[in-house]
Amino acid sequence: MSTYIHQVNYYECDRMGVTHHSNYIRFMEEARVARMEELGYGYAKMEEDGIVSPVMSVSCEYKKTTTFMDKIEIVVKAVEISALKVSFEYVMRVGKAVVCKGRTMHCFLKDGKPVVLEEHWPDFVRILKEEIDG
Amino acid sequence: MSTYIHQVNYYECDRMGVTHHSNYIRFMEEARVARMEELGYGYAKMEEDGIVSPVMSVSCEYKKTTTFMDKIEIVVKAVEISALKVSFEYVMRVGKAVVCKGRTMHCFLKDGKPVVLEEHWPDFVRILKEEIDG
Amino acid sequence: MSTYIHQVNYYECDRMGVTHHSNYIRFMEEARVARMEELGYGYAKMEEDGIVSPVMSVSCEYKKTTTFMDKIEIVVKAVEISALKVSFEYVMRVGKAVVCKGRTMHCFLKDGKPVVLEEHWPDFVRILKEEIDG
Amino acid sequence: MSTYIHQVNYYECDRMGVTHHSNYIRFMEEARVARMEELGYGYAKMEEDGIVSPVMSVSCEYKKTTTFMDKIEIVVKAVEISALKVSFEYVMRVGKAVVCKGRTMHCFLKDGKPVVLEEHWPDFVRILKEEIDG
Repeated sequence: MSTYIHQVNYYECDRMGVTHHSNYIRFMEEARVARMEELGYGYAKMEEDGIVSPVMSVSCEYKKTTTFMDKIEIVVKAVEISALKVSFEYVMRVGKAVVCKGRTMHCFLKDGKPVVLEEHWPDFVRILKEEIDG
Repeated sequence: MSTYIHQVNYYECDRMGVTHHSNYIRFMEEARVARMEELGYGYAKMEEDGIVSPVMSVSCEYKKTTTFMDKIEIVVKAVEISALKVSFEYVMRVGKAVVCKGRTMHCFLKDGKPVVLEEHWPDFVRILKEEIDG
Repeated sequence: MSTYIHQVNYYECDRMGVTHHSNYIRFMEEARVARMEELGYGYAKMEEDGIVSPVMSVSCEYKKTTTFMDKIEIVVKAVEISALKVSFEYVMRVGKAVVCKGRTMHCFLKDGKPVVLEEHWPDFVRILKEEIDG
Repeated sequence: MSTYIHQVNYYECDRMGVTHHSNYIRFMEEARVARMEELGYGYAKMEEDGIVSPVMSVSCEYKKTTTFMDKIEIVVKAVEISALKVSFEYVMRVGKAVVCKGRTMHCFLKDGKPVVLEEHWPDFVRILKEEIDG
């Protein structure tokens, strides 16, 4: 599992001088996009297969503030998979300190209807199950 | 308890034509700011008292998509209060349909140190407790 | 010509405590959307007619800083119209002070091809010409 | 002069499926921050010297659309310098195609007062003049 790095931009910091909390939700998306790409199920593949993947829920615990120029290292890990849904966990660090922990849940739609993952993407299910168990 | 309205802007919608999920975190902040103002503990009061209020955690369940021009009605309600922390819940509707439910937890800092709410803002504690019980 | 109001949100302010300069470009879009609506050429009408209107250029002069809670009053005025393009000017005020002046140029596309405004929307051309001359 | 790369994020694209025009203003900031760093006048240096550098104006011509995953290569070049102000130009490319051209003007403040660049940062002036003439 590789690490995704987001270096905090000036425009992502707020009046308190720290990264605005809403931006971590975007950093999770960036890291997830990179992770899906790495797994062979990136955006091009999804588009080719006519599949979109809405976010069903998101949660985030802010442990430490970060600021402009900080390099946030994000590790994404699949933590749950069911017939229709996948959940990922995110651990974000600056140096050794954990700055944020997050979680998202996703479904997959084709022509507006839920996709049974085992049928469409059996390899994806297998890979994620290994990641969850490993 | 009044209702805060956010009308979705063009630049808040994504490639799928719907409000990007990260923006709901910002809508919660907008509604919370308005609610705190209404309670008499708005930004000017906080600044005057030298208090800042970081977000400790956030969660959000996306029930239905919204899009450009939609008027999202947001009701904020205090749901938990302890010595140092307050939690709010958010219900967002377009017309009668609930589109999103969220929750945030906050602490309060003065000179970088946690504020005991009962000592600094006893009236705030009383008002929120009534809201929670009511 | 009515005035569009954008109240600055917390998340729109930066480390210097002022509205980040990129956000004014978004405020212009908000004001333009409202103005087009008012003129009878709002988003629904455009979508119905199969027309999209990309921004070709934008410019912005920052006169004074604004900050959280400021109510920015924006007046949009058409200033130039040609066969294929329209330009708008924006004056933004907080109270009596001009805080920002901007300008945008737009074309109009149908099925990816430039729309000759006089043919598709003659009334729109007439209204804008009156505004420019008036 | 090195090239700054911004890969377009999902959340930066709009309903038309393309990078929202306001985001290019942010990409310019990212590239300028990197360029100032490279010149030895990065954010840490500015903070150390107690100098802030507000944007006075910005302009942007959109030549071609870009979209999710596109790698935008940005070259920043100083194009004008006076006693108190500096202007930069930005050329953004995807592959060989120019997608956007921009320009920004900046002043420099210390304790809220304009900084005479020649006095505070003579080397900075020299380097930029060489870049402009070169």
